[in-house]
Amino acid sequence: MEQQIPYKIYLDETELPNAWYNLRADMPVKPAPLLNPGTLQPLTAQELDGIFCEALVAQELNETDAYIPIPAEIRDFYKMYRPSPLVRAYCLEKQLGTPAKIYYKFEGNNTSGSHKLNSAIAQAYYAKEQGLKGVTTETGAGQWGTALSMACSYFGLDCKVFMVKVSYEQKPFRREVMRTYGASVVPSPSDTTEVGRKILAEHPGTGGSLGCAISEAVEVATVNPGYRYVLGSVLNQVLLHQSVIGLETKAALDKYGVKPDMIIGCAGGGSNLGGLIAPFMGEKLRGEADYRIIAVEPASCPSFTRGRFAYDFCDTGMICPLAKMYTLGSGFIPSPNHAGGLRFHGMSTTLSQLYHDGYMEAVSVEQTKVFEAAEQFARVEGILPAPESAHAIRVAIDEAVKCKETGEAKTIVFGLTGTGYFDMVAYQKFHEGAMSDYIPTDEELQASFDRLPRVN
Amino acid sequence: MEQQIPYKIYLDETELPNAWYNLRADMPVKPAPLLNPGTLQPLTAQELDGIFCEALVAQELNETDAYIPIPAEIRDFYKMYRPSPLVRAYCLEKQLGTPAKIYYKFEGNNTSGSHKLNSAIAQAYYAKEQGLKGVTTETGAGQWGTALSMACSYFGLDCKVFMVKVSYEQKPFRREVMRTYGASVVPSPSDTTEVGRKILAEHPGTGGSLGCAISEAVEVATVNPGYRYVLGSVLNQVLLHQSVIGLETKAALDKYGVKPDMIIGCAGGGSNLGGLIAPFMGEKLRGEADYRIIAVEPASCPSFTRGRFAYDFCDTGMICPLAKMYTLGSGFIPSPNHAGGLRFHGMSTTLSQLYHDGYMEAVSVEQTKVFEAAEQFARVEGILPAPESAHAIRVAIDEAVKCKETGEAKTIVFGLTGTGYFDMVAYQKFHEGAMSDYIPTDEELQASFDRLPRVN
Repeated sequence: MEQQIPYKIYLDETELPNAWYNLRADMPVKPAPLLNPGTLQPLTAQELDGIFCEALVAQELNETDAYIPIPAEIRDFYKMYRPSPLVRAYCLEKQLGTPAKIYYKFEGNNTSGSHKLNSAIAQAYYAKEQGLKGVTTETGAGQWGTALSMACSYFGLDCKVFMVKVSYEQKPFRREVMRTYGASVVPSPSDTTEVGRKILAEHPGTGGSLGCAISEAVEVATVNPGYRYVLGSVLNQVLLHQSVIGLETKAALDKYGVKPDMIIGCAGGGSNLGGLIAPFMGEKLRGEADYRIIAVEPASCPSFTRGRFAYDFCDTGMICPLAKMYTLGSGFIPSPNHAGGLRFHGMSTTLSQLYHDGYMEAVSVEQTKVFEAAEQFARVEGILPAPESAHAIRVAIDEAVKCKETGEAKTIVFGLTGTGYFDMVAYQKFHEGAMSDYIPTDEELQASFDRLPRVN
Repeated sequence: MEQQIPYKIYLDETELPNAWYNLRADMPVKPAPLLNPGTLQPLTAQELDGIFCEALVAQELNETDAYIPIPAEIRDFYKMYRPSPLVRAYCLEKQLGTPAKIYYKFEGNNTSGSHKLNSAIAQAYYAKEQGLKGVTTETGAGQWGTALSMACSYFGLDCKVFMVKVSYEQKPFRREVMRTYGASVVPSPSDTTEVGRKILAEHPGTGGSLGCAISEAVEVATVNPGYRYVLGSVLNQVLLHQSVIGLETKAALDKYGVKPDMIIGCAGGGSNLGGLIAPFMGEKLRGEADYRIIAVEPASCPSFTRGRFAYDFCDTGMICPLAKMYTLGSGFIPSPNHAGGLRFHGMSTTLSQLYHDGYMEAVSVEQTKVFEAAEQFARVEGILPAPESAHAIRVAIDEAVKCKETGEAKTIVFGLTGTGYFDMVAYQKFHEGAMSDYIPTDEELQASFDRLPRVN
């Protein structure tokens, strides 16, 4: 008989993972290495040290250690908001009339409003440990920038954030949160960097993109002594830190003897998805268990479902390393209609390799359908989701409805990455019927693919 | 030896209180009854039934039962976001270098962003149980309106919210959250009610006040069949529902054998303070324990510290019952400089009586000092507090600093009522040095007292 499962499964703070799980150690085919954009040769640790902190470079390149201990200082910070709850969506199940059992791992119960804090605090810790003055970064929807501001404030580091201009304008209050944590925030592209001025000259009036903002942040980090660049997604090190999400999820499910049938996560650069699925994918790779693993991405920025698996620049300015990933081309900028995050043109190399090798599925969803799911979820589960998170909700609901049709009592786990308190402009558009969907045409994508670097 | 106390003490969902605690049952002097504004006689249950749901009227008038069971449907809803954490502020203690032990009960981990949901869901439940179509209410900072929207959405009730105009304008996104939950939101004073039109005629261009908004909401509830009025603070029933905060706090402290020296809460109408202190005050009233209990209010709306203990109208339009309370006069409107909530001219009759009888202290604080405390707290504890909550933080920090001076390791518990994500306009003003303090002059208050009803 099934044990009575509470609404929220909270692990004790002593049950916080002691080590992150490094999925790459269990991958039969490792993700392709980052390439130096000049030489097109795999980047060495020494070359990467100019951009990232040393300890993070080691994590970035580590493909052998399955577990990497979490330093005590980071675990102490985690204790302020972790373990995060795994919630049984009883009310949503009831409303859908589905036999499916739905769980979500809720990462929004911290001021950054998302899971991004898990990696921000780790990256800030290593920067501090190395004796740096500060870090630079980019932010799209603003969650990563907020998380990093909080982390830098905690460790007394300077924090410079380049925020995608369209988000900066759509989310005026995000800037104030970052300022509360002492960060400086610049809308990108800006005239404060060489690459920013170049992009502005070529695309006057552009709303910017993550790719542009990355170029600017990297330039500032490499030009200013005592600074390094940090990134909130895509990188191996980020997926490593985010594995805390999946490890907690698995521990909470194991506590009640629950085995999920499918795990669903939204995918932009892959930080949440990669973290959520890590231990489950590990079991799958080791042949110990099988799960459906589903990445959900916006139809307006469909790197998995319509991108090329190819080497590409991680940034628009083409000053960053090349990564082999599913990409829409580094010049791709999502339509201004697109609200919220999940706007990166590429995807984590780790997830790209796993997808390429058939270990996971991907679907794309249109944003009006996403906001419908967001509102439905908010009304019954009492949490106002971030638009990013609502991509996963959309597919979780769709799968639960399928279960209703087939009568199957499947167990669905999805990642609820964060809250939507700073996305009310988008919600307002949705309420007023002013939200539209935009799907890039094949021609547009082809034009972007034509500009992929010649290394492929 | 002291047991190791975790960063966050989470009770299990089975430890959720089964009953609310009705503080009045233990009061030697009961709060004075509400009076009919026409007859100046104590209001009967029958008279109150026209305004409030029947079950809530019974709770409002109940001075004998110390415990009132929480219906299962309400407990189920509570389980979506309760028990809320009691957090040990280790990082704040360390930063202050204080021997004091600081705890805060955090009520912000739900989409309404505050403790208001505890009473909203109870009031919506009883309205539904009575077969009503919907409810009307007012909201100041917007937390109560959001909470009620969520609760009404859950039970399928119509929800009409009159929002103080100045807050409506300062917090455009609050409206969108309420709309997400299906509520209709009207800035108050409005031309949709008779009393609203009257107030507009007398005070053209007014930014409104809670008192105005209450008048409008009550009018709509009494004019439309199938509707009742609900209120998020001040009332006995609200304090009753909010006792869940204090009961959980006490249970969490008892678990670790911790006995607080002082309990600090912000006070507007008294909903959070009354709930937080309830079981502690009960012990004090029964002579079983002693605690310092401190109410913190804005210097710009100082009902405890500078108000009169007198019968007064609860609303500006003078259509509501009279309550004997600490009041600044029902015509008092806080300076437009005042950010956030805690802007009600009066105070819970229960808390007023307790304060009058010497069972608690009160202090007032100026808002720039409040925002300094808010930012300091955010940076070390990782939670961006609501301005309301930051009043309690201010005094908790002040008391912890006193401990540093005297070397006393006192245990301080304060209520962190909610998050400040919708208060970024105020934070921005603070960051830009554009925030000012305003303390009403004695003459202004005297003019307001001169208009108190003649029943006193």
